[in-house]
Amino acid sequence: MYTSTPNWLMQRAFLTPERIAIYSENEQKTFAQLHEAAIKKAGKLAHLGVRKGEIVALLMRNSINMVEMIHALHYIGAVVLLQNVRLTVHELVWQLQDSGAKWWIVGDEWGVYKDEIAVPTITTSELEKLPQDDVPLQEQYHFDDIATIMYTSGTTGKPKGVLQTYGNHWWSAVGSVLNLGLYENDCWLAAVPFFHVSGLSILMRSVIYGMSVYMMDPFDAKKANEIIMSGKVTMMSVVSAMLQQMLSQLGERTYPCMFRCMLLGGGPAPKPLLEVCRDKNIPVYQTYGMTETASQMATLAPEYSITKLGSAGKPLFPVQLRIETEGRAARSYEAGEIVVKGPNVTKGYLHRPEATEKAIRDGWFYTGDIGYVDEEGFLYVLDRRSDLIISGGENIYPAEIEAVLLSHEAVEEAGVTGIADERWGQVPCAFVKLKNGCVATTEQLTAFCQTQLAKYKVPKRIYIVDELPRNAAKKLLRRELLHLIPKDQR
Amino acid sequence: MYTSTPNWLMQRAFLTPERIAIYSENEQKTFAQLHEAAIKKAGKLAHLGVRKGEIVALLMRNSINMVEMIHALHYIGAVVLLQNVRLTVHELVWQLQDSGAKWWIVGDEWGVYKDEIAVPTITTSELEKLPQDDVPLQEQYHFDDIATIMYTSGTTGKPKGVLQTYGNHWWSAVGSVLNLGLYENDCWLAAVPFFHVSGLSILMRSVIYGMSVYMMDPFDAKKANEIIMSGKVTMMSVVSAMLQQMLSQLGERTYPCMFRCMLLGGGPAPKPLLEVCRDKNIPVYQTYGMTETASQMATLAPEYSITKLGSAGKPLFPVQLRIETEGRAARSYEAGEIVVKGPNVTKGYLHRPEATEKAIRDGWFYTGDIGYVDEEGFLYVLDRRSDLIISGGENIYPAEIEAVLLSHEAVEEAGVTGIADERWGQVPCAFVKLKNGCVATTEQLTAFCQTQLAKYKVPKRIYIVDELPRNAAKKLLRRELLHLIPKDQR
Repeated sequence: MYTSTPNWLMQRAFLTPERIAIYSENEQKTFAQLHEAAIKKAGKLAHLGVRKGEIVALLMRNSINMVEMIHALHYIGAVVLLQNVRLTVHELVWQLQDSGAKWWIVGDEWGVYKDEIAVPTITTSELEKLPQDDVPLQEQYHFDDIATIMYTSGTTGKPKGVLQTYGNHWWSAVGSVLNLGLYENDCWLAAVPFFHVSGLSILMRSVIYGMSVYMMDPFDAKKANEIIMSGKVTMMSVVSAMLQQMLSQLGERTYPCMFRCMLLGGGPAPKPLLEVCRDKNIPVYQTYGMTETASQMATLAPEYSITKLGSAGKPLFPVQLRIETEGRAARSYEAGEIVVKGPNVTKGYLHRPEATEKAIRDGWFYTGDIGYVDEEGFLYVLDRRSDLIISGGENIYPAEIEAVLLSHEAVEEAGVTGIADERWGQVPCAFVKLKNGCVATTEQLTAFCQTQLAKYKVPKRIYIVDELPRNAAKKLLRRELLHLIPKDQR
Repeated sequence: MYTSTPNWLMQRAFLTPERIAIYSENEQKTFAQLHEAAIKKAGKLAHLGVRKGEIVALLMRNSINMVEMIHALHYIGAVVLLQNVRLTVHELVWQLQDSGAKWWIVGDEWGVYKDEIAVPTITTSELEKLPQDDVPLQEQYHFDDIATIMYTSGTTGKPKGVLQTYGNHWWSAVGSVLNLGLYENDCWLAAVPFFHVSGLSILMRSVIYGMSVYMMDPFDAKKANEIIMSGKVTMMSVVSAMLQQMLSQLGERTYPCMFRCMLLGGGPAPKPLLEVCRDKNIPVYQTYGMTETASQMATLAPEYSITKLGSAGKPLFPVQLRIETEGRAARSYEAGEIVVKGPNVTKGYLHRPEATEKAIRDGWFYTGDIGYVDEEGFLYVLDRRSDLIISGGENIYPAEIEAVLLSHEAVEEAGVTGIADERWGQVPCAFVKLKNGCVATTEQLTAFCQTQLAKYKVPKRIYIVDELPRNAAKKLLRRELLHLIPKDQR
């Protein structure tokens, strides 16, 4: 039984050394060069004292340097804890302590935290100056070994460290290629952070497929459009907000036909957005995934992108998926919890045996998200469970209300969450960002919703705001919407 | 640790039911239709009495019926022994006995053998008439379970059954896609037999990738060219003799650019052939593989098809390969035995623990083939197991023919080697020393061989000689047999 593969970047550097592994605006590296750089960094890390099996926290912005660092740590066999650069020092330190990280490697701008932290800390510039030690490199990646850890908040309370094995990343890449295919000229535009699984999985696919990555940081809608129009890339990962900006900037133009995949993740997408893409022949693949499934677990296959608009598609080939409600399998169209099984699913949460046992039962992972499948097995994600608003016994899914608001001509972005209500338990509350130069009153928007939605779903309050809270991946943070409410009205 | 996947055809029928799985000249079936047909046949096989884990020998020509049968047997969990339709009844029965097959399913033309055989035998037409029983279907394919068995002769004369697991086929398909890619319009022209791994692996890739197969039987150079010119297929598996015929027939024309892969296996290809293809822009991928590695183990990547003309390329991504000579790793350009490791490599030979131990040491499979790698790691296959004869893509082992000749009452010694043949590449040629006082003509010996051996194995020439070339240890020197041919006949 085979439970390992040759080290991915090492094998790539052997098989296709001259292919470009990664482009940035000013630089490019072949697989051979990336391999050389990773070996060099591995030697410096070894000199620092990093050893196989140790957890090393990494806090960097997307850069070729960061890519080399991740591979170098894997060459040594260290476990890479990827941290979100938007976190406060308080949150970062909490992760260091919770994980028991042995080292903290940070971009230079975080060097100032060095003295406040008990964990040995080094900036990337300091590391670069170290000499290289000889170190045995992992020539095989064992599927059961932990490659990376990412913290997610999940549905309740404190963040948990999600364990991602080499096997999780391998199978995710294989499941994806069996669905999206692999063309000789493929190049993936990465404008999502590598500390999120949406970004990291692009790097993993790159070394497993021998595929180029074009790295962009920070995301810029205009530049992204230019790169696509120039024919440099064939695929891109986005969330709705990014795609929305790109479409606004694109205007009347559309993309060249060699651009073959706009992989749209990060939560349910508003239908109007999908319809615009359909009309413009932009090949949007709606996908559903999470940190715990090492990115995509379901993606809408090309032939169904029109007829099943709004669906997240069917599971990837190695994945099984079902809907559970009240402890039983749901019927077609009946909403319930999305439950998933497959080799891309996490082994569990770091130091959290109870949370792991609760989430993974009989080999099935309980996502906490709500969805249904139609009679053909297409998945429709209604909402992430944490966001579910229950009002007078009725389930309300914010995405549905947001989609309605977004279909209003004056609305650019919309976010909905539940607020406490004496009578109904919860009621929906909406936050809206208007398009430049557009005007609409809350009364007008409410009236508009009343024409589109059952009464209990109509937001009881609507706030017009300048900006919606989003994470580094531009994903809407519904829970933080409440902070936008003026203090005297909370 | 994940050690299984969802049943491939079943998952395909769920994920992409409407895609065409297989075309023949007069018929086509979607994955959903193929799945329905497999379920139906599984029910009939269950009624017959076929049970999970039993070895079922299958003797059929390429047909959609055969494809359904293979899947149906896998749905039940039976182990499919695939038999070469060119074998004599003598050879077929030997395989049935050696394998301990519980059932023999044969195309109607072999129904006449029914009464001579102890193993319960049924023709495909008879099976079709049976009612269907309910039977539990394998919903998961376990990587360690045996999916198929194919007999190969190897060096020692008697054929051995090569065990191919579901994992072998899975990893072969995955290794191939990471090298050859996967396009939305891919369709593979299958004109090689499904009872050989070159053909069977196309069927496996089809259900794993969701890719169409265009089936052609028998192979016809003119028709193959027409199918490629029509744009119906993008890839094809061939051996040199087939490609040669296709090129002759093609004349001044060339293939459309959407035809993206001519996968050329079945032994070293003559350089002039490769050069013609280069000049005509025919994308030839030279590949090296065998029954024991579930098809390809190395393939020349597109970017090197010109600069490394004649090489079989580098290993597939999950595979490792090295050259051994005198018990040590060979240097670059130094010839030695090709040794290979990877998840596509067989677990061993059916009922042959000793042969298995000899072939697989420390997880490395000793191919018995000779080759070298250049300084960049490109493999050049010099020769198959010194004495292997490759005739029109079929492997012929001299020892097997010698054993038949030696069983003739008049023969004292026999030696067989390959001689060049314009059409087939090589054909077998035999040298025989008669027993003292015995008489036999070459015609009689040929007639005798015809009763025992498949037609392609019957020596095209037989020479009666006084003595065979042997070394001091009396070991037959097959390579020197050629010197016994009268000069005017060489």
